[in-house]
Amino acid sequence: MANEDNAYSFTTKATQHIKLGSLGAEGFPMYKGGRLAEVTLAYECWGELSSKADNAILIFTGLSPSAHATSSELDSSPGWWEYMVGPGKAIDSNRFYVVCVNSLGGCHGSTGPASIDPASGEPYGANFPCLTVEDISRAGFLLMQELGVERLFAAVGSSMGGMAVLAYAIQFPQKIEYLISVSAATSALPLTIALRSLQREIIRSDPAWNNGQYQKGHEPLIGMALARKLGLVSYRAADEWNSKFDRSKLPPEKLSGKHFQHEFEIENYLEYNAQKFVRSFDANSYQYLSRAMDLFDIAEHGGSIESSMSKIKVKKALVIGVTTDILFPSRQQREIAESLQNTGTETEYVEIDSVNGHDAFLVDEEHFSPVVARFLSNIL
Amino acid sequence: MANEDNAYSFTTKATQHIKLGSLGAEGFPMYKGGRLAEVTLAYECWGELSSKADNAILIFTGLSPSAHATSSELDSSPGWWEYMVGPGKAIDSNRFYVVCVNSLGGCHGSTGPASIDPASGEPYGANFPCLTVEDISRAGFLLMQELGVERLFAAVGSSMGGMAVLAYAIQFPQKIEYLISVSAATSALPLTIALRSLQREIIRSDPAWNNGQYQKGHEPLIGMALARKLGLVSYRAADEWNSKFDRSKLPPEKLSGKHFQHEFEIENYLEYNAQKFVRSFDANSYQYLSRAMDLFDIAEHGGSIESSMSKIKVKKALVIGVTTDILFPSRQQREIAESLQNTGTETEYVEIDSVNGHDAFLVDEEHFSPVVARFLSNIL
Repeated sequence: MANEDNAYSFTTKATQHIKLGSLGAEGFPMYKGGRLAEVTLAYECWGELSSKADNAILIFTGLSPSAHATSSELDSSPGWWEYMVGPGKAIDSNRFYVVCVNSLGGCHGSTGPASIDPASGEPYGANFPCLTVEDISRAGFLLMQELGVERLFAAVGSSMGGMAVLAYAIQFPQKIEYLISVSAATSALPLTIALRSLQREIIRSDPAWNNGQYQKGHEPLIGMALARKLGLVSYRAADEWNSKFDRSKLPPEKLSGKHFQHEFEIENYLEYNAQKFVRSFDANSYQYLSRAMDLFDIAEHGGSIESSMSKIKVKKALVIGVTTDILFPSRQQREIAESLQNTGTETEYVEIDSVNGHDAFLVDEEHFSPVVARFLSNIL
Repeated sequence: MANEDNAYSFTTKATQHIKLGSLGAEGFPMYKGGRLAEVTLAYECWGELSSKADNAILIFTGLSPSAHATSSELDSSPGWWEYMVGPGKAIDSNRFYVVCVNSLGGCHGSTGPASIDPASGEPYGANFPCLTVEDISRAGFLLMQELGVERLFAAVGSSMGGMAVLAYAIQFPQKIEYLISVSAATSALPLTIALRSLQREIIRSDPAWNNGQYQKGHEPLIGMALARKLGLVSYRAADEWNSKFDRSKLPPEKLSGKHFQHEFEIENYLEYNAQKFVRSFDANSYQYLSRAMDLFDIAEHGGSIESSMSKIKVKKALVIGVTTDILFPSRQQREIAESLQNTGTETEYVEIDSVNGHDAFLVDEEHFSPVVARFLSNIL
């Protein structure tokens, strides 16, 4: 079922779309109010569902990735978690039925602000209802029900996806056996809120944003590029850049000669990566997903972090943090692990000493792959 | 001599202006090329110059402060380093003749991009020549010559001002006896360049910037506010905000009710402080001064950091760093201290364990004041 109303829907033969069938007249009620009349979710899957439907792993993504976590016969292009997912890899598609879902509110095939609002025939834009991590998590749950998976073997997620995993286990405690939370948080710290709030404001300050009602071909690309640069700065760690760029300057032939030109390699790196991003991501999706992370506060589910965590009934949890993460610092990872442990969940905590900061899970195969592989292998 | 061509010249009765008299037909040649036909510098001073003119301390500022370092009878409003400078304080105006200079390229009375270019009769704007820390430092040197001070007792500076102090001691080794460098660097790290480059780009992306040729009343205030917010994020430390703001939200009566409104106290704090700043600072000055810090590389003065530092001939140096500074991290402070020490300068290094990040020197009187006071007291 193609979701052709979404301009950013870079779907391939591997992307599947499903319209949640059980919503009925009630639609999809949002956690903080409002409702979506209908919800389409884009996902990819690898491996086979067992006859008992007891081998499904659901992957929730960070803010920007699509459902294309890894390559397959249908789509040979590398996925965003290529090293982690596939036959014989840490999340082994020979053993597991692995599903990755494009987040509700996203722009890679799932219903989001760029989708057509059936009530108006126009894109939702800034009229999309307030989005939360809980909504993303519940959309993933409903997807799995549609796919015939009553109960997950495990949910796995990093960054925003890790928050969604925790929200899944709290909202549907009987429907999940194991969880893996990577570089997530029980709630965002003020520095992290400041950095994300500023990114969103930079986008909204681009006149092309037009209160969220921009037209195709007139997207706020300047604001998006600046916001993405700020995102990139926060995703990586200072020391990685010290060794990678130091104070290297662009070669003379790359200098524009213009006043205020970019002169350092680090400036060029940010420009290149920002431009790669801006045409593939919807500015309103960025607003909603980024804000969802700021709003997430696990304590809302029980009055305190521990009383909320006590609702989780998984057999075992794996929590991974990174020493150089400034956005979701390691003390927040220890907080997740300790509150799980303190409320009766057997928990393994691994703090990875990587130079790659918050983005380490995307690139640091050497450190991440064995930790996830061992955790899943030990469950027989 | 009033410098009335500068729109941001918030000068008071205490601010003095001097037109550098010795420039002659050559004007002021800039370190990286180009020249200014004439240079006016704004400064304030406290205390009395001794008959031997051997008790002068020159203070260089960070990017944004004016020459108003501290209050006086002529201007009772608190200065930006009120706790540090004055009678009986660490930098004691009963003992020293203390001068604080508004940086060349700044907008609080000294010649900068908002000043009138005598050649065109219009503000320099983006036609101001490339500005470096070396230029700022040399302008300060010429000011002191005009004031009858051949040789400084000491130069003191923090952040960009600390860089200017090092450049002073390298460029005029016979003209300075002591130096105090606070939260400075021998050159900027890539993360720091990235954060500053992004601030400048945000300003230039505001359509009102108009290639630097904005008109009075049509300044790029939106870009300036966003840039200042990013600056503020980088000036402070995460833990300070954790204890100060945590996840506090605005009271309902302060919520605008608008979509995408600010909801967290941290967002409100940034907004308030950014708005306070934008009308008091020239956007082009921001471009030039910020870029000067990126361009500064002490190794240019001798081929390496140590060979450059070996040119410094002060009797003793005090280097201060802050554990939580992410912009000019403490390892850069140790680098300054060690390279001074290794090249024969007696150096005291103090690393202050403050929660206030890069801005600590502005607010952490308790930690900073005794360190500076003791250093100066021990010199008799």
